[in-house]
Amino acid sequence: MPSAEIITIGDEIVSGHSVDTNSSFIARKISSAGIEVKYHSSVGDSLAPMEELFRSALSRVDLVITTGGLGPTDDDITKKALVKVFGRKLIYHDEILKDIEERYAARGITMPAINQNQALLPEGATFLKNRLGSAVGILLERDGKILVALPGVPAEMKTILKEELIPLFNNRFDLLQIAERIVRTSGMVESELAEKISSEIPLPDGVKLAYLPHTSGVDLRLVARGENADMINDAIEQPEGWLKRKLGKVVYGGKGETLESVVGALLKENKATLATAESMSAGMISARIVNVPGASEYFLQSFVTYSDRSKIDALGVKSKTLKKFGAVSKETALEMVKGALEKSGADYAIADTGIAGPAGANDEKPVGLVWIAVAYSRDGELITHAKKFLFGTDRRINRERATSAALNFLRLALLNELDDSK
Amino acid sequence: MPSAEIITIGDEIVSGHSVDTNSSFIARKISSAGIEVKYHSSVGDSLAPMEELFRSALSRVDLVITTGGLGPTDDDITKKALVKVFGRKLIYHDEILKDIEERYAARGITMPAINQNQALLPEGATFLKNRLGSAVGILLERDGKILVALPGVPAEMKTILKEELIPLFNNRFDLLQIAERIVRTSGMVESELAEKISSEIPLPDGVKLAYLPHTSGVDLRLVARGENADMINDAIEQPEGWLKRKLGKVVYGGKGETLESVVGALLKENKATLATAESMSAGMISARIVNVPGASEYFLQSFVTYSDRSKIDALGVKSKTLKKFGAVSKETALEMVKGALEKSGADYAIADTGIAGPAGANDEKPVGLVWIAVAYSRDGELITHAKKFLFGTDRRINRERATSAALNFLRLALLNELDDSK
Repeated sequence: MPSAEIITIGDEIVSGHSVDTNSSFIARKISSAGIEVKYHSSVGDSLAPMEELFRSALSRVDLVITTGGLGPTDDDITKKALVKVFGRKLIYHDEILKDIEERYAARGITMPAINQNQALLPEGATFLKNRLGSAVGILLERDGKILVALPGVPAEMKTILKEELIPLFNNRFDLLQIAERIVRTSGMVESELAEKISSEIPLPDGVKLAYLPHTSGVDLRLVARGENADMINDAIEQPEGWLKRKLGKVVYGGKGETLESVVGALLKENKATLATAESMSAGMISARIVNVPGASEYFLQSFVTYSDRSKIDALGVKSKTLKKFGAVSKETALEMVKGALEKSGADYAIADTGIAGPAGANDEKPVGLVWIAVAYSRDGELITHAKKFLFGTDRRINRERATSAALNFLRLALLNELDDSK
Repeated sequence: MPSAEIITIGDEIVSGHSVDTNSSFIARKISSAGIEVKYHSSVGDSLAPMEELFRSALSRVDLVITTGGLGPTDDDITKKALVKVFGRKLIYHDEILKDIEERYAARGITMPAINQNQALLPEGATFLKNRLGSAVGILLERDGKILVALPGVPAEMKTILKEELIPLFNNRFDLLQIAERIVRTSGMVESELAEKISSEIPLPDGVKLAYLPHTSGVDLRLVARGENADMINDAIEQPEGWLKRKLGKVVYGGKGETLESVVGALLKENKATLATAESMSAGMISARIVNVPGASEYFLQSFVTYSDRSKIDALGVKSKTLKKFGAVSKETALEMVKGALEKSGADYAIADTGIAGPAGANDEKPVGLVWIAVAYSRDGELITHAKKFLFGTDRRINRERATSAALNFLRLALLNELDDSK
């Protein structure tokens, strides 16, 4: 199995001013393709340490992938380092410049002259087409080792990696087989899951289980490696099936599925439409639903009612309810969700109201308190459910968890799995 | 200046199944405190390579900070590696377990027994209180070198770092002075900015400028280092002032400010309220506005009108307008924003409608086309502005850029900087 090192470049990464999402994306893609990622490392925009890192990486792995430092500005020096390490000069490529000019023209903008830098590549490099930006990917080889330099802009890096590089690696290396299964769960914390799973799960030799917690829930990841695809697939199916049986409705999907994609698929399957009424999440539920391409088939609208007044005007919540029980209450959540169903004419509605923090709490209602409600009609009857959640103290995390909890609650409603009906 | 290496631990990181946001956060915090981050590295959940990495890190830097592998489950083995590298045994700490039990009790949940593992620490360790979770931070010292192990859950790591660790470092090291300025811009791409700036900006020796592009715009970061705080502050103020004068209204703020926090501050200053009408962004604008604590002072509600029907019902958009000009048009954007202003009673409203992709485009209206509109009244007169944007082909990036463009358009309206009034 070929080994790889992923190097992310930029003062902004080493100093922490940019979050590096590139190395994880690259690692995921190339390890799924059967390449072993041995190291990640990062270095700033300075020539000597960059050269040094490129040299040591080329000595310890078969494949080095770098991102960043290919832009047109003065602080972008990856090509300078490549020229030094590989002992080659820069060559001008007219076809690259033409391509950039055309893209600017299509947007109705004159290309800034500084982009001429982007047409210079080290001699002997293979260039990898970038259809989203001006920095092409660069592939250099020496002594059986490969170095690939990709731009740091995530969308550009991803497109080049998927469209150009992975197919090239598949041709080039004789890759080991890897089987991987993701079992995605929502509604149970990591330690509860571990108590249910860890001592009992049948894990064949060579299969590893990892718990990956997110604000949406916990992903359970199974990985098996080997030379025989059939054998590793058999080995991984046993614990995968066991997890699904053991955890039941806590499991919402597998690899590539999200709460919003699963909910979207269930709505489509039921030919049903959806509206949301959001207070604490303030648009995060609808924003996630619309992440899924084609959401317009089932998603109608969201009532983001942050003020009391808007809850009354847009959703018909009674001011008496707000006065007696407060905006964060089961009663308000239920009136919100009924209002959303009625005003939108949707088949399903979901609502949330809570205290995100840091302000807004009192003795009875702490920061992190959230009420989620769902409404729909079944056999001509209006059904509603409401559930209380108590999250933590961080404003943003509370809002993300409320959003995920609402999507999960809607999923359970769509599956007829809610039993606390009123 | 003490040097540091940040190590993130976990198979999920090396294989890319988790995005590592921890190392950038830590790097930012400790480099602002005057510690030089020399390396970032990552290693999986396997004992031998983890020990090896801990040993080499302790040999090449003064301070090693690790995150991850401190959870209660079997795949968490950071403490095992520490025990080996430092040659110490694990000691049980009753006070840590009591603290965890109390936190579970406060949430009304019985503590899963597996959390007893969390009370075991290497002998001689200083523990760093974690008020958000069950894994405390661990600080070990040997031969003048320090290793700190922090939990991998970002909120927990951040809290321990800010509340416990940075104050400890400030006492411990004689730190170099660093001056940093962030000049945040919106509405101009990196290469345009570079053409305006790079050949002209007066950069004193030792001051570095970096361009950091995001979907919100481009941050310009100036950094100066030295022993004398007054000297480096003087050196950095010159290019900072130059950038602000040169770029004018393109600059929206500095370090720690976001488009939504700046817009929030302007609304508060004007004692004005806000509503949004969102189609393509589908709640992302309101979700970002509500990111700012205290947004309830000025934010009333959002009309997320994804379907044509909801644009008509919730905002009073005319069906004739939708038929004649389409949902993605200047006319619809203007009717949406007027509807939002009127129905909410807010002082300002902002609207967006666009084609996020991949579907929905036609010959006249490509993917990436967005109309943004703003409305408010001034001296009793209704003022509206609308502007067309053409972004790229990626659904999520298009929606993020539309959201930022809308917030920036609102900012310019609040500053009286829009001149295309109709």
